[in-house]
Amino acid sequence: MDSSICQCETAFSTIDSSIYLCGIVTIDLELRDDPEPHESLLDHCKKTIQHSVKTGHPMFLNQLYQGMDPYGLAGQFVSDSLNTNLHTFEAAPVFVLMEQEVVRKVCSLIGWPAGDGLMGAGGSMLNMFGINLARHKYFPDLKKTGMHGGPRLVLLTSAESHYSMTKGAGFLGIGTDNVIKVKCDERGQMLPEELDKAIEDAKSQGSVPFCVNATSGTTVTGGYDPLGAIADVCQKHRLWLHVDAAWGGSVLTSRKHRGLMAGVERADSLLWNPHKMLSLPLQCSVFVTREQGLLKAAHASGATYLFQKDKISYDASYDVGDKSIQCGRKTDPMKFWLSWKAHGTRGFEQHVDYVFELAQYLYDKLISRKDFKMVLPGPNCTNVCFWYIPPSLQGMPEGPEFTKKLDQVAPVIKDRMTKNGNMMVQYQPLDGVPNFFRLVLANTETTRQDLDFFVEEIERLGADL
Amino acid sequence: MDSSICQCETAFSTIDSSIYLCGIVTIDLELRDDPEPHESLLDHCKKTIQHSVKTGHPMFLNQLYQGMDPYGLAGQFVSDSLNTNLHTFEAAPVFVLMEQEVVRKVCSLIGWPAGDGLMGAGGSMLNMFGINLARHKYFPDLKKTGMHGGPRLVLLTSAESHYSMTKGAGFLGIGTDNVIKVKCDERGQMLPEELDKAIEDAKSQGSVPFCVNATSGTTVTGGYDPLGAIADVCQKHRLWLHVDAAWGGSVLTSRKHRGLMAGVERADSLLWNPHKMLSLPLQCSVFVTREQGLLKAAHASGATYLFQKDKISYDASYDVGDKSIQCGRKTDPMKFWLSWKAHGTRGFEQHVDYVFELAQYLYDKLISRKDFKMVLPGPNCTNVCFWYIPPSLQGMPEGPEFTKKLDQVAPVIKDRMTKNGNMMVQYQPLDGVPNFFRLVLANTETTRQDLDFFVEEIERLGADL
Repeated sequence: MDSSICQCETAFSTIDSSIYLCGIVTIDLELRDDPEPHESLLDHCKKTIQHSVKTGHPMFLNQLYQGMDPYGLAGQFVSDSLNTNLHTFEAAPVFVLMEQEVVRKVCSLIGWPAGDGLMGAGGSMLNMFGINLARHKYFPDLKKTGMHGGPRLVLLTSAESHYSMTKGAGFLGIGTDNVIKVKCDERGQMLPEELDKAIEDAKSQGSVPFCVNATSGTTVTGGYDPLGAIADVCQKHRLWLHVDAAWGGSVLTSRKHRGLMAGVERADSLLWNPHKMLSLPLQCSVFVTREQGLLKAAHASGATYLFQKDKISYDASYDVGDKSIQCGRKTDPMKFWLSWKAHGTRGFEQHVDYVFELAQYLYDKLISRKDFKMVLPGPNCTNVCFWYIPPSLQGMPEGPEFTKKLDQVAPVIKDRMTKNGNMMVQYQPLDGVPNFFRLVLANTETTRQDLDFFVEEIERLGADL
Repeated sequence: MDSSICQCETAFSTIDSSIYLCGIVTIDLELRDDPEPHESLLDHCKKTIQHSVKTGHPMFLNQLYQGMDPYGLAGQFVSDSLNTNLHTFEAAPVFVLMEQEVVRKVCSLIGWPAGDGLMGAGGSMLNMFGINLARHKYFPDLKKTGMHGGPRLVLLTSAESHYSMTKGAGFLGIGTDNVIKVKCDERGQMLPEELDKAIEDAKSQGSVPFCVNATSGTTVTGGYDPLGAIADVCQKHRLWLHVDAAWGGSVLTSRKHRGLMAGVERADSLLWNPHKMLSLPLQCSVFVTREQGLLKAAHASGATYLFQKDKISYDASYDVGDKSIQCGRKTDPMKFWLSWKAHGTRGFEQHVDYVFELAQYLYDKLISRKDFKMVLPGPNCTNVCFWYIPPSLQGMPEGPEFTKKLDQVAPVIKDRMTKNGNMMVQYQPLDGVPNFFRLVLANTETTRQDLDFFVEEIERLGADL
């Protein structure tokens, strides 16, 4: 691996389809009528690697996907080389069975005796599956009739939940206005009593709540919604409980941390992205539900050209494609399956425990320094959210002027670190507070020494601000 | 490559998560707490390869994806090794620009001076993008309000179109009942006058047509809807025209065959899967639209944690992720881009022309034999649809008894060929006609000699029927 995260950080513009780096064309992007020779193709590949971001670098702390599990990559290379498709058993016999085993094992981690599920193209799409299953469970006719004559369905989710809930509501015809954002506590965790109140309010206004989304590991603050208390509210109102565990679901493998998801066995559906904390290659997303047959009922269209019922060699129930809204579906189970074989659940646990310890280490270090201020009390999941207070702002009284200046600090430091190319971390505003850094830990290669360097480097980059 | 397509064809059952092949456990699928040693992992990989279907085999004629472009696979390996995500420029600078170039070039093949677009997880999802763009174009408020209080929107598509239209209508809250299937001619091509009539009928019943889907290369029969005449109807009624060119879109690269899509420049959006006829690795799906900005308007949710507006290093319009309903999105542009660089548009053209010639060769051969009967007059696209008439049915008068017996022929022959493992082709019923074989040609390695063998082998496998 290159020692820098990316060599494409310096200012550039795109002109005539070519990437200009410091004014010099480095990759000729234009597609043409005539072929190019192998030498030129190889050069394109080298430059692509050079100018791409190295997400496996131990100082790439920018996104929830980090690192790279080598077994996962090997599994992906094997299945991608076979280039088949997870729609029918005849096209993908081994991968259909691997997916079943992955689903079985995930259900068992959750604590379900049985369940149904599948893998798909990322968490946003699979969160939509959760919403659609809830809709189909309570209003099965809407699949046929459409929503135009139906009730005003509303979906409840926390104010800190992932944007795919709103996006999904827009796409599914439910409407973004019909996503009710429930208040959270100071750690970004949904307040069950606020959920209950919001459901009552919605009902009193003539809306029809049908689904609650709880988050295990919110994107920015790492909050774990209290699943047990939320399940109580869902039970009281008879609502579908979907759990978006895209980021935080990996704690299910850890005896030490799985308590963060206590009550998860009461969920109706759950989405988990092992391509996040477990460093599986993108994309590795698993959706599971306790309700047998509902995925097929909600999504199937029964195309006779693909899902023939008169197959002789095998039971057509192994033709799993109709559970999805995708027709072609990548053979993602192999990478996760091979990685699980290689590490065992205990290996996953060890990794999760390690990155949690790193997060605590960083939090403890930052809280002891006067030039850092924490956004939340304690690390949440492996998210550490903080402001760097540069010398000019230290001692300044908090107020609009302070907030305005602080808001500009993170973008400048981010720009400088990106240009240096030695580390990468994300910043964002939230709920009216100024821009802060959110550092997440997921890479097993990241060490305490790396985090020591990180803190010093932030101070160095912001010393003149 | 193995000489057989798959060694997993003999009867098996799954017991205790293991694949049994002729009663012998061949892959131990169970995931456990403890890790397994490298030797065992390697053995799993070998067996997975052994028992998987070889879709690159020249006699794999079963699905629309066939063969394997080596440049595409190389591009995929490079981009997958970098393991980044096509949501922001900071995470995927090169791939964002490659995607722009792919989109630009596809728009130019269509004949649009400019356009917008993206790659995504398969044709079904991207067909839904076409439907959603149409909805957002004419009813932008529905994204916010949902469809519950809105009009009864109806979508028109041909009776032979892909099932993703119906599936999409169900998922998007439009309702499967609100997909109007328009009659086709004997070649599976939508009749524009029937479309016009269906629109008038829908309006007279108080429904609101908003989108017409035309297909370039229907899944089973390979029909190309007449885009010019359909565009006239759409223009008359002011409807969005989406073209599902998943299968047939590759003719855009061929000067000889692009006439099949005459009028395509009048479409509003189009979906093309180069992972089908061009043998790019799964998945390689491109969606384009003439309407600038509509993808973002229809799909964006503007998450501040990801799409920060105060980035310093670059223009935030390069953060393309919000155009999609996915958050994480695979870096698919590289495989297509590298393959295009390697072959040039002329190389793609040569391939398309070759597989079209093969289809004609097979059609001419079959029509000259008394034991084969064609479903359609002439090959359509590279689809060749036929019945094999076994000795016992030859000379039998057509009628219910003949139809019933003929319906059982294809499943038996398919079962036998699958167990032999030397070739694979799909069968299905359609519009009340009995099961027939649909052979499609897309692999540049398939030869006339292979097709000669195919015909003889069908006769051998069905000789006793």
